[in-house]
Amino acid sequence: MWPTEDDVRRRFAAARTGRTLAEAALEPLSFADRLAAAVAARESQVCLGLDPDPAKLEAPGGAGDHAEATGVAVADACRRLIEAAAPSCVAAKPQLACFERLGAPGWAALAATVTAAREAGLLVIADGKRGDVPVSAAAYGQALVGSTPVPGGEVAGLGADAFTTNPLLGADALDTMVEAAEAAGAGVFALVRTSNPGAADVLDLPTDAGPVWERLAALVAERSARLAGDGAGEGLSGMGAVVGATEPAHLARARELMPAAIFLLPGVGAQGGDAAELGIAFSAHPASALVTASRSIAEAEDPAAAAERLREVTASIAPGP
Amino acid sequence: MWPTEDDVRRRFAAARTGRTLAEAALEPLSFADRLAAAVAARESQVCLGLDPDPAKLEAPGGAGDHAEATGVAVADACRRLIEAAAPSCVAAKPQLACFERLGAPGWAALAATVTAAREAGLLVIADGKRGDVPVSAAAYGQALVGSTPVPGGEVAGLGADAFTTNPLLGADALDTMVEAAEAAGAGVFALVRTSNPGAADVLDLPTDAGPVWERLAALVAERSARLAGDGAGEGLSGMGAVVGATEPAHLARARELMPAAIFLLPGVGAQGGDAAELGIAFSAHPASALVTASRSIAEAEDPAAAAERLREVTASIAPGP
Repeated sequence: MWPTEDDVRRRFAAARTGRTLAEAALEPLSFADRLAAAVAARESQVCLGLDPDPAKLEAPGGAGDHAEATGVAVADACRRLIEAAAPSCVAAKPQLACFERLGAPGWAALAATVTAAREAGLLVIADGKRGDVPVSAAAYGQALVGSTPVPGGEVAGLGADAFTTNPLLGADALDTMVEAAEAAGAGVFALVRTSNPGAADVLDLPTDAGPVWERLAALVAERSARLAGDGAGEGLSGMGAVVGATEPAHLARARELMPAAIFLLPGVGAQGGDAAELGIAFSAHPASALVTASRSIAEAEDPAAAAERLREVTASIAPGP
Repeated sequence: MWPTEDDVRRRFAAARTGRTLAEAALEPLSFADRLAAAVAARESQVCLGLDPDPAKLEAPGGAGDHAEATGVAVADACRRLIEAAAPSCVAAKPQLACFERLGAPGWAALAATVTAAREAGLLVIADGKRGDVPVSAAAYGQALVGSTPVPGGEVAGLGADAFTTNPLLGADALDTMVEAAEAAGAGVFALVRTSNPGAADVLDLPTDAGPVWERLAALVAERSARLAGDGAGEGLSGMGAVVGATEPAHLARARELMPAAIFLLPGVGAQGGDAAELGIAFSAHPASALVTASRSIAEAEDPAAAAERLREVTASIAPGP
């Protein structure tokens, strides 16, 4: 299915921008365009959160290296969950912490999970919330959406379609991540207002120009044009924002400050957010927000049905307050 | 060498706190105490930054899997650098981004590098600047200083002595990282004021109670007692702070706000900071600050000599302005 859709979207993008098909084929299609096409095709705004808890898996067979066996079991569990839920979703969001706690076998499981998600037609959002000074941020870009030059070749990174990032270190650090995304046709979701109770401690601190999180929103909006869609995702930007779904009061203001940003909305389900109240986070474009659900799908008796129920809710969301 | 030193320090700690040796032996010695003992033994406050750039390595032999071969070459290069520089250093700080861009082989190289650093008598500070909502922060704690329960056992994490963390998400997220450190006798370095030019964009935003970074400093100071040393490190806390050495103007104020915190001072050497001007960052305790140097040691013609020169500078720093 994907090659055909890709081709259609590429033609669409080329036609709108006056590029020849050959020119368009040389550039990666932007994340905003890929997401918009996927949302249209599946009538879904659901992002499947992948936060595997190895303790809940059945015991991996045999003795030997716990880490190796657990890594394989985690990858299997993620693949099964993806296969069940993918038809109702457009993206998968692996939580990197849950994989890297298993060391190298965990990172191998992460790579296998990314592959499984792509094979199921999902865009992959690597949720590591990385952020560092520019020289180190560039290395994270290589890890997530790029590749690393080595003697005699390149080592491919994770190949994600987008990633989350922590913007505390300011514009130069964020710009390094955005550059990596631009080069790869990827998206970036900067933390703007998270869904945990403690988020208020720093993000809501009042400044002359509003709370700190509104300054982070401004950093996002200022970079909107750099990751803008120019095809199916026109009017959207892959310079996106993480805005917790547990605080609908913030969503309207966030949309006002970041009109083009794709929002990643965690906190639905287990964390208490209600998907039906999220219309306020959407712009007119149906791909302007993704509703992320992890435990409420993974721990459901029937994950496929749980994902489909959430898809129906998102498909019925009317944008606006 | 370490077992004997450990024993001495443990006796010292037990004697000061009135615990029996048997009681003290059941608890991990705190990071502040381990660091204070190492600083005293080596008369050094140097932290060796490990930011391996695979492109600068000699070509790994043979064809085959670039990532595997590069991971092995990176681990070898880090081991050689550690063996050369360790006698003049007390800690090593692997930059996680530089390893994880090589995927699972990179994580294996990271684990090997941690082992090599510990064998050389260095404390290990895992520099990943992780930060997330509590449920995910707990997984990072397992990855860095804890272990992960799995069916039939546990998978050990990286076994670092301390780690860096990004406190943007507030008290509950930070507390989860501190809890992981408490359980492991580890230290935590929260980003307070970094050394990149863009740091001013968010961290210096003025609020009613001073710039944002001073609020982060308050979050650190409020947690000081939880990771306090009670032996050689008495008066210090492993609830530490990353404060860029490129802005000495911030250092005096940071020390005022965080009197017990161990400071991690990046930015010396290649980034422009001058180690000789760092006395202002120190409290009276010689282990109250670590001077981190990466490229200025790794890329020196003689890394051992470069590390020793920096050790001599740090040993001659007079605390105070």
